[in-house]
Amino acid sequence: MSLIVTGTIGIDTVETPDGERREAILGGSAAYFSAAAQFYLPVRLVAAVGDDFPDGLMAQLRHFPAVDASGLEIRRGSKSFRWGGRYQRDMDQRDTLFTDLGVLAEAPPEIPENFRDSRYVFLANMHPALQADLLSKMTGPRLVVADTMNLWIDIAKDDLTSLLGRVDGLVLNFDEAEQFTGKRNPVTAGRLLLEYGPRFVVVKKGEHGAILVHRDGLAALPAYPAEQVVDPTGAGDTFAGGLMGYLAAADPTDPGDFATLRRAMAHGTVMASFTIETFSLDRLRTLDREQLEARYREYAAMIHLG
Amino acid sequence: MSLIVTGTIGIDTVETPDGERREAILGGSAAYFSAAAQFYLPVRLVAAVGDDFPDGLMAQLRHFPAVDASGLEIRRGSKSFRWGGRYQRDMDQRDTLFTDLGVLAEAPPEIPENFRDSRYVFLANMHPALQADLLSKMTGPRLVVADTMNLWIDIAKDDLTSLLGRVDGLVLNFDEAEQFTGKRNPVTAGRLLLEYGPRFVVVKKGEHGAILVHRDGLAALPAYPAEQVVDPTGAGDTFAGGLMGYLAAADPTDPGDFATLRRAMAHGTVMASFTIETFSLDRLRTLDREQLEARYREYAAMIHLG
Repeated sequence: MSLIVTGTIGIDTVETPDGERREAILGGSAAYFSAAAQFYLPVRLVAAVGDDFPDGLMAQLRHFPAVDASGLEIRRGSKSFRWGGRYQRDMDQRDTLFTDLGVLAEAPPEIPENFRDSRYVFLANMHPALQADLLSKMTGPRLVVADTMNLWIDIAKDDLTSLLGRVDGLVLNFDEAEQFTGKRNPVTAGRLLLEYGPRFVVVKKGEHGAILVHRDGLAALPAYPAEQVVDPTGAGDTFAGGLMGYLAAADPTDPGDFATLRRAMAHGTVMASFTIETFSLDRLRTLDREQLEARYREYAAMIHLG
Repeated sequence: MSLIVTGTIGIDTVETPDGERREAILGGSAAYFSAAAQFYLPVRLVAAVGDDFPDGLMAQLRHFPAVDASGLEIRRGSKSFRWGGRYQRDMDQRDTLFTDLGVLAEAPPEIPENFRDSRYVFLANMHPALQADLLSKMTGPRLVVADTMNLWIDIAKDDLTSLLGRVDGLVLNFDEAEQFTGKRNPVTAGRLLLEYGPRFVVVKKGEHGAILVHRDGLAALPAYPAEQVVDPTGAGDTFAGGLMGYLAAADPTDPGDFATLRRAMAHGTVMASFTIETFSLDRLRTLDREQLEARYREYAAMIHLG
């Protein structure tokens, strides 16, 4: 089965509440997503960076052999996307220190011809009009899921609403779901979002887990109760990567069915729990399948009523 | 099997963010706890009120036939405990409008002779020295669980620490666990609390569920994803009531074993989900066993990975 992600590769600077700081580390939604999803199946990565993108970070990305980075454009004369953030004490709020859009202010990346037949499509956070444009290049997806952010709900709600009519699923944070719908309740907000077209909405609550609002039912999953939380950056993108990776590898008869999605969310949850143990993709680079499966079993046992 | 709760019966005034206000409604930890637990087995209630306690509220309490209120003292010349609170917009914070301690500033209630052989004991929130005193009257409990609050961590931490050496389990809010241990992580905080003696700690996170930190393992349960949230007052006490009620009725060979406790927490979670649908104990008064079991099945299916 084939899985594609369109999104960003970035150069991040991250400060944590205990005073740790890492400069110019690998980040971006597509980097996190594909590093997670490639544990389940090969992933086609579509993104763009500038020619200032450090070789060292490129080597880190290429460390993941099942990520097909032939859709990663390196643009001459352009600057890479850079983001800096500082986490507040309880790690569930962060302040943006700077954002240099770089290539993100230019045309979106091209989808290579040989990627266009991808059956599972994840549109990571980007202007919803660009997400729609990228989606229109795909020739026959089985399942399309999009992520979004508060900025687009603010300034491009019509485009986002239109996109919702064209995707099977939406993944977003609780605050974004509230912002879009005006409803503080994740289930109520999720149900309202379903009215715009998707078959399911995944409301992410960070350290408090995630809720699946699906036309065929509701599911609630706690986060893995992690004790080691160094850097939450990318938790949401690796959650989506684990979710989509599991789903595409399983490739069920009905690709958006409730039971498989719930299991897929559990895989996403476990993947995110590794991501936050270190900065950047450091933990995912050392993660092996045995550790992943062991923690999945531990998590499944933890939430099972037995 | 026998279950006893020591705690408060109060007269509450509650304001919710949408401007609803209820004055002089039935409240208090022991009221909520026993109304929940009595769905599983008879409950022995120990508390005190003043002679100003309204007949109407007493009738509401007596509506629950499996609550043995013969340990409820009505003190001549004393005033009942009254509390007023206002919930903030997102329902997970509340401001206290007033507290009239009344009988709570007097001697604690007596435990009737015929209650002292109770095998399951729940010490609802009260000064930890009084909790210890009440516990010392019990002749042979199988399992003792205590609740507490931020005030006692502030002003009576030594008494609380001493109490922890005498109970099997502690139930407390996430913020209280952080306040006691200085650790923001619920698992880390729970593990530190175990060092004071209990075999398990249940860290409650309100709308975000609860975490069980047990000497034999960890469990994480999401809250029931409720859409109808009118008044969260008593959610924690009915959570404890459902938990202890299920546990005492099941009366396992090892009364604090991990697997039974996890299931007991699920029962507490479901019970709390009913409580918050209305003010006071209104929903629990109309709840029947069939509705309770249906929602338990729904909840279990919701979190089961299948």
